[in-house]
Amino acid sequence: MYYIGVDVGGMSIKGGLVTEAGDITARYTVETQRYSEEYGIAEDIRKVVDGVLAEGKVGIGDILGIGIGQPGSVDSERGIIRYSNNIPLERVPVVAQLKKFYDVPIYINNDANCAALGEYVFGAGKGYRDIVFVTLGTGVGSGIIIGGKLFEGRECAGAEAGHMVIVCGGERCNCGRRGCWEAYASVSALIRQTKAAMDLHPDSLMHQEAAAEGKVSGKTAFVAAKRGDKAAQQVVDRYIDYVGEGLVNLADIFRPDVILLGGAISKEGERLTSPLQKKMDAEAFGAKFNPRVAVKIASLRNDAGILGAAALVCSDRT
Amino acid sequence: MYYIGVDVGGMSIKGGLVTEAGDITARYTVETQRYSEEYGIAEDIRKVVDGVLAEGKVGIGDILGIGIGQPGSVDSERGIIRYSNNIPLERVPVVAQLKKFYDVPIYINNDANCAALGEYVFGAGKGYRDIVFVTLGTGVGSGIIIGGKLFEGRECAGAEAGHMVIVCGGERCNCGRRGCWEAYASVSALIRQTKAAMDLHPDSLMHQEAAAEGKVSGKTAFVAAKRGDKAAQQVVDRYIDYVGEGLVNLADIFRPDVILLGGAISKEGERLTSPLQKKMDAEAFGAKFNPRVAVKIASLRNDAGILGAAALVCSDRT
Repeated sequence: MYYIGVDVGGMSIKGGLVTEAGDITARYTVETQRYSEEYGIAEDIRKVVDGVLAEGKVGIGDILGIGIGQPGSVDSERGIIRYSNNIPLERVPVVAQLKKFYDVPIYINNDANCAALGEYVFGAGKGYRDIVFVTLGTGVGSGIIIGGKLFEGRECAGAEAGHMVIVCGGERCNCGRRGCWEAYASVSALIRQTKAAMDLHPDSLMHQEAAAEGKVSGKTAFVAAKRGDKAAQQVVDRYIDYVGEGLVNLADIFRPDVILLGGAISKEGERLTSPLQKKMDAEAFGAKFNPRVAVKIASLRNDAGILGAAALVCSDRT
Repeated sequence: MYYIGVDVGGMSIKGGLVTEAGDITARYTVETQRYSEEYGIAEDIRKVVDGVLAEGKVGIGDILGIGIGQPGSVDSERGIIRYSNNIPLERVPVVAQLKKFYDVPIYINNDANCAALGEYVFGAGKGYRDIVFVTLGTGVGSGIIIGGKLFEGRECAGAEAGHMVIVCGGERCNCGRRGCWEAYASVSALIRQTKAAMDLHPDSLMHQEAAAEGKVSGKTAFVAAKRGDKAAQQVVDRYIDYVGEGLVNLADIFRPDVILLGGAISKEGERLTSPLQKKMDAEAFGAKFNPRVAVKIASLRNDAGILGAAALVCSDRT
């Protein structure tokens, strides 16, 4: 038997046929469109599901269930996309729409929640019971597992740690608040911080790196710092410190077994986790008498979306 | 049948005989001492329990259980005081010590957790399922109820929201971090903010108020502001904004039904909740599509300690 995981993104909707062990044996992708009343996102998800079944040469009878990971605010209980910014959507009862076509359990949840579940079921979170997953990507997303279960807050509207203020009165965030963690620890924030340092340091290797890549990216400062550039190292150190402020906050609030880092920046691996673990051990509340919180890199990488969505199905069965 | 609630504080250990409806029908108090191997805190808790039984003219057979609320870090699963700062204690297995004398269920938990439970069972939290309780006192404590159950984090070491950083690199906190919420939203922080404003504004009514009270207190700025003093109003506004930053963070993370405010500052009532509710409605993530989080004053006041401790017993039975 298989799961189908569907990863909805701003550019594409990717589906995968997932074995119970977490292997992806077939894939199908469509481009994301602008959806309307006439042609809704459920139509495209159907194309993806049917494509996955055809590619995998299986029928719906071989499927334990379909999971959908969706950016934005999702009412997972009622199966409704409440609101999505990147793909303009509002109050779409997507699970009910799909149920007409597939007689299997269908689940939808926020993409960061899915990623957390995916790590718990198939990835670096295996064997832990209490996990905080943080994605350092375009934004900062979080998914929280408490006692082996996804914690979503009332009406699935919690676990938005990216919008926790860490710099009162600081940078304006997309959400409207000032000083959100996301405004300091996302890739977009790191790019802004890198550009500001480049302006101040015209001789920095960051200029070379940006020229070579054709743009300033989340890697610019990390690569230049590796080559010994001091200004770049300062950018990296300060960025990691911002990331750490939020992680320690979450450790004090949830005291999980482990915090897992995903998203583009997590590719930096130990360069990220080593200073963050040090900060965690030094600053988490009551280090002397409280259990340690480990900081690790998430393991599912590019398949996190599909596997996380598939995990919605099996986590329901456990 | 009755509960016994024991409220351990830096100055005194207060006990109460609590009916199942939450009325306190007898009380007994002893002074807190410096404890040693020879004379431990369990000895004094015994005095309080025996005193309460005698005052209430009941026997241990009339008692459903004993609950103890303790400041500091408590391992509630194992019944151990891990660490307490105000009353120097380390790794005291107080429940096992008391079990030798009383054949009833005995529970211990952190005082802020108890206060949250107390409000949930007997106070302003009745009828809600998801509650964040925040005490604005000497420090900033928090207790979190999820789905009607106390959330404590792994090994009961979570729910320390007072040490969430809201001002990265800001004021030094007692815990060692910089910029903790507690360093901005506690009574001690408000007093510091008030004194700083008094230095800048020698004509402010805050000087009169402080002279009348004999000291600068958490009330000084609030009272002077009420009398129309602008500098005092600025202190109050900024203080409330600091409180609000942490509350909105917790709303984004937990999305509870209600946030309840306790502790000395909560006596300001609507002067506190009215601007905080406004900030919450404006700044909590996704106000347009997510459920509202109410901000209210906790109701148990001076009896919060005893009733919260007693609630440890009945919450176990529900």
